[in-house]
Amino acid sequence: MTRSFIPKIGITLGDPAGIGPEVAAKALADGSIRAMAHFVIFGCPMARLAELANLPLDFISHAHDLSTWDGRVQGVGLIHDLDALPGLTFGKPGKVGGDAGIRYVLAAVDAAKRGRIDGIVTGPISKEAIRMAGYPWPGHTELVAEKFGVTDVAMMFAGGPLRVVLVTIHMSLAEAIRAVSAERIVRTCRLANDALRRYFGIDAPRLGVCGLNPHAGEAGQFGFEEREIIGPAIEELKSAGIAAFGPLPADTAFHQALHGRFDLVAAMYHDQGLIPIKTVAFEESVNITLGLPTVRTSVDHGTAYDIAGQGRANPAGMKAAIRMAVDMVRRGRRP
Amino acid sequence: MTRSFIPKIGITLGDPAGIGPEVAAKALADGSIRAMAHFVIFGCPMARLAELANLPLDFISHAHDLSTWDGRVQGVGLIHDLDALPGLTFGKPGKVGGDAGIRYVLAAVDAAKRGRIDGIVTGPISKEAIRMAGYPWPGHTELVAEKFGVTDVAMMFAGGPLRVVLVTIHMSLAEAIRAVSAERIVRTCRLANDALRRYFGIDAPRLGVCGLNPHAGEAGQFGFEEREIIGPAIEELKSAGIAAFGPLPADTAFHQALHGRFDLVAAMYHDQGLIPIKTVAFEESVNITLGLPTVRTSVDHGTAYDIAGQGRANPAGMKAAIRMAVDMVRRGRRP
Repeated sequence: MTRSFIPKIGITLGDPAGIGPEVAAKALADGSIRAMAHFVIFGCPMARLAELANLPLDFISHAHDLSTWDGRVQGVGLIHDLDALPGLTFGKPGKVGGDAGIRYVLAAVDAAKRGRIDGIVTGPISKEAIRMAGYPWPGHTELVAEKFGVTDVAMMFAGGPLRVVLVTIHMSLAEAIRAVSAERIVRTCRLANDALRRYFGIDAPRLGVCGLNPHAGEAGQFGFEEREIIGPAIEELKSAGIAAFGPLPADTAFHQALHGRFDLVAAMYHDQGLIPIKTVAFEESVNITLGLPTVRTSVDHGTAYDIAGQGRANPAGMKAAIRMAVDMVRRGRRP
Repeated sequence: MTRSFIPKIGITLGDPAGIGPEVAAKALADGSIRAMAHFVIFGCPMARLAELANLPLDFISHAHDLSTWDGRVQGVGLIHDLDALPGLTFGKPGKVGGDAGIRYVLAAVDAAKRGRIDGIVTGPISKEAIRMAGYPWPGHTELVAEKFGVTDVAMMFAGGPLRVVLVTIHMSLAEAIRAVSAERIVRTCRLANDALRRYFGIDAPRLGVCGLNPHAGEAGQFGFEEREIIGPAIEELKSAGIAAFGPLPADTAFHQALHGRFDLVAAMYHDQGLIPIKTVAFEESVNITLGLPTVRTSVDHGTAYDIAGQGRANPAGMKAAIRMAVDMVRRGRRP
């Protein structure tokens, strides 16, 4: 008789001055979520969160060291008691919250490296608060990549039936146009192809690759990038046995993906990929880091300081991020 | 007793080598469409179309001169009998089809100028076929603007609950970035504001104005355009009493519009506006030209030469374009 595998998922609460703790508490209050995995919470004690979120969380016990963890659902107040964060104010970016949010992530990465957890789900942190706390990383992706010692990562998003990977990310649109290169497209699509095979159970993924210009350049009339950069990158991917299609007019690519034509769309710049994801599945879109030695998913919303501590935050994104991490960990184990 | 107003709508069939005639025939075969208006068809006789589309179109009578029109539904073979288009081949861009498609539009514009019709709905033409026929216009918008003697036009799209206007249109993305100016944003938003008031029954339209860069530049971190161009344009619009909001992060603007926060979103470049429209409402999106002295709507799909003449074309876009034109004409008449 095989003992069934239950994933161990670490959840970092994000900036405690934002809605991260609340959405985590509300997500874990859902029995169908709790039944999916064993959870370790990196952040302030869940009892205080339950109070904040006005939720009965008596299923959460407390522990302060992962080595004492018995493998069942519990809150692990590894870093800070919320009450012990002097100077923390709900609803504002600040040094205290920025610092705490980063330290929760560092602890989770450490636990993953030691094999204590199989995947990490991160709550929202604020770029501004991180800067105020004196850390160098612009966001989670760069932080976890550095701590895992990985340089070759990519940002993927899943929302409803759509999956997108970004060839360029946080830079101006003018800079993104210059940064789009065949090498970068090939590298990003390879990571996506590997991830779809390993974590999404798709043996021969079909990747739609967007053009950069309107109508994918309309045969060279609007821009040269499709012919000189994106087309050759697609040929290189095909030579490597990857089913890459394009350059596709971006305005119809996502419609085609929605109708099952592609398993994932590669977008050349941030808004090209995020507009369809957030328009179609705003509340349930999940951010996934590809290229790490562990599974990492994240909510795709911010700290929402303006509604922090009011019990009004919607946990749909956190639930979706947890479900995605659990699915990916389960599929990633298959031989 | 008031006699109720019935709009007179001209439909141009588009390139007869494409699916335009078929979608028009199928749309008019729908009794609920026929009940909305009196129609004049600019193109080949509908009886031949009905045969092609395998549809019983006995409601269509024939006439060859608009001056004999009795104001009821009928097909008016103003230009060409399909059989009298020597060299026309279904399913390919060509000189004959390109020429015919343009001449249908010229005839419709002429009829609108003479007050014979209240609005124009255009079927799809092909840029390539137009070039082959030796015409200078890249598409309908430029053609109708020139023939009406108007220079200040804008391209709007409506799809399901979304309405979008484009600040820049058919140019490379790099060129679009350079073309975005405060003057152009203000001009485009003014046209949209006027149209929403006149043709959409919205007394005080709320316009969401997208940023150009990811996260609308994230406070100047990714690009300067929000601060130096788009922000000042929004201030100018507000000073003129127009409810303009932004610069908005483009990835969330359309979600907000879907949920009723804006009556229309102004997009800085083609794909920024077209990705959400076509992802959300692919089959029913309608292209509308703002700034003309008449109503002009169009299907938002191409000639689809690959399925022309096979009876497989979907008339949903043509029906949506007809409904939109009828609604706009009705509302535009209000004092």
